[in-house]
Amino acid sequence: MKIIDQMQKENIDTLLILNPHNINYLAGFMPSAASILVVKDEPVLLTNQMDMEDAILNSKIPVEKFKSLKELKKSLNGVIGLESSMNIQTFERLKKDAAFETKITGIVEQMRSVKTNEELKNIEKALEIAEKAFKSTEFDDSKTENEIGAEIEYNMRLNGAKKASFDTIVASGKRSSLPHADVSMNKLERPIVIDWGALYNNYCSDTTRTIIETERHEEIFDIVLEAQKSAITAIKPGVKVCEVDKAARDVITEYGYGESFIHSTGHSVGLEVHESPSLSKRDETVIEKGMVLTVEPGIYLKDDFGVRIEDMVYVTNKGRVLNKIDAKINI
Amino acid sequence: MKIIDQMQKENIDTLLILNPHNINYLAGFMPSAASILVVKDEPVLLTNQMDMEDAILNSKIPVEKFKSLKELKKSLNGVIGLESSMNIQTFERLKKDAAFETKITGIVEQMRSVKTNEELKNIEKALEIAEKAFKSTEFDDSKTENEIGAEIEYNMRLNGAKKASFDTIVASGKRSSLPHADVSMNKLERPIVIDWGALYNNYCSDTTRTIIETERHEEIFDIVLEAQKSAITAIKPGVKVCEVDKAARDVITEYGYGESFIHSTGHSVGLEVHESPSLSKRDETVIEKGMVLTVEPGIYLKDDFGVRIEDMVYVTNKGRVLNKIDAKINI
Repeated sequence: MKIIDQMQKENIDTLLILNPHNINYLAGFMPSAASILVVKDEPVLLTNQMDMEDAILNSKIPVEKFKSLKELKKSLNGVIGLESSMNIQTFERLKKDAAFETKITGIVEQMRSVKTNEELKNIEKALEIAEKAFKSTEFDDSKTENEIGAEIEYNMRLNGAKKASFDTIVASGKRSSLPHADVSMNKLERPIVIDWGALYNNYCSDTTRTIIETERHEEIFDIVLEAQKSAITAIKPGVKVCEVDKAARDVITEYGYGESFIHSTGHSVGLEVHESPSLSKRDETVIEKGMVLTVEPGIYLKDDFGVRIEDMVYVTNKGRVLNKIDAKINI
Repeated sequence: MKIIDQMQKENIDTLLILNPHNINYLAGFMPSAASILVVKDEPVLLTNQMDMEDAILNSKIPVEKFKSLKELKKSLNGVIGLESSMNIQTFERLKKDAAFETKITGIVEQMRSVKTNEELKNIEKALEIAEKAFKSTEFDDSKTENEIGAEIEYNMRLNGAKKASFDTIVASGKRSSLPHADVSMNKLERPIVIDWGALYNNYCSDTTRTIIETERHEEIFDIVLEAQKSAITAIKPGVKVCEVDKAARDVITEYGYGESFIHSTGHSVGLEVHESPSLSKRDETVIEKGMVLTVEPGIYLKDDFGVRIEDMVYVTNKGRVLNKIDAKINI
């Protein structure tokens, strides 16, 4: 098992996995309540009675009932690897009178950043479902943002998604200048920023389209699109993700809107919609074949409007866009 | 400010709030990305550029741009209160070369457990929306569990919910024996356990109904209902939540199904669907007027079927059920 090699490199004797997505990645079973995957030569998934039946059916790793943290601690020694997402309450209980050392590690998150073919297929299917739902949605001005969001999510479910991979954003008119605006009960205005995704077989898609109206909208739209293309072209194995961010940011800055591009250029996506690495100024992760990254520059003009365009990109020897629907939409 | 008094009692000089629900509770603004609320005599909400516009509009607490953890640390001294949900990566960065002590506290969670009248109204509205959506859903056997789940969520949105307060569970036939089964793509069988809720103005509802068919289903249903009534009757100010759990558990145990009631009896609900306290064997929290608790006993018969009934209860001088739809449904 590859993970054991990596643990040896990091001098970790036992790895404790609590993050449900990490458990799902390694064991093929998504816990619904607190479970602990103990990774060592003979790994074991400790779960509670509520998940027991499901876990036994689906886990690739032997399942035992979780008794208590006290019991678990007795079996631990040497250096124990912990996920950065562990909360300090659990950490405090774990460390109390402990006969072992602990160390934060991102082993599983790093494994997850490079997708297998099977994972890619799930992501592509999630994207297909999401795009189909988008195409069957009518952006009729008599509808509210909330109704559009509800409709897209309903359509994704009917197309086979387990649910939306995150809360759909429908931000129209002035609200389009708020990058994380979810939905309001206002009727649609223009432009309309729609940021949505489907969850299929536990994998996420994540896409944004902006439906524009005026020449001023189009002017901004074209800058964002140029920035996005520049970033996509910059994606190849061996390049740092911060360089991809720079490729998008430089274009927007050249046009004088650098201050209005107020987030990073993208992120890895898989079992979670936001995974590591982040395509940001400070992330120096080197791109590898098999990564799936979003590229989503935006320009946000306060009290006026905003534009964001987001596609999903799979890394081969270059960046291959997975989305099928055009960036510019004629509605 | 009540929170400052409580901080003094716990000898906390400054409280750092990162949990977005806690920030929302205190500042009236729900951050979409990492923000820190620094609670002291002159509290301040540190937020990033992406949330800035929204935060300035909506926060009851003065907003400043978050610069860096390093900057923030310079301003901290004495005893710093932290939430139990803080992750160990943030904790490690915070503690490095720190000139202050830290202490885990549940001050805000404790405040949140007792609802104001305004909070109760939001919860009641969320419940009203959820029940209306349930009533307008046709449990037609030609539909899949997923379709029913999608329909309930869509109807809640059209009735004014921002979204479902958690992933709707529609577990039918054998799957009803899995307490956390979300939905499958299978067509509906009987019984059908539906566990659903709406989010309205950031507040959650949470209800479960089981649609039964056979006499055997009814036999189990009646035991669960008796257990639920017993627990609801046990709710009053001054009683420990574990006693409410016991009231339900005793009934189910008397009928010989104690081993098949594999979760706790309920939980507090508010801004989050699962809040503290938990109506479980080990939680000794004393019930107070103004709490909103779910009461949701269940019996799960492996490879056969399951029944769960869940209502929301508001604590006055007794437990007042907020739900309007009957436990037993004739469909």
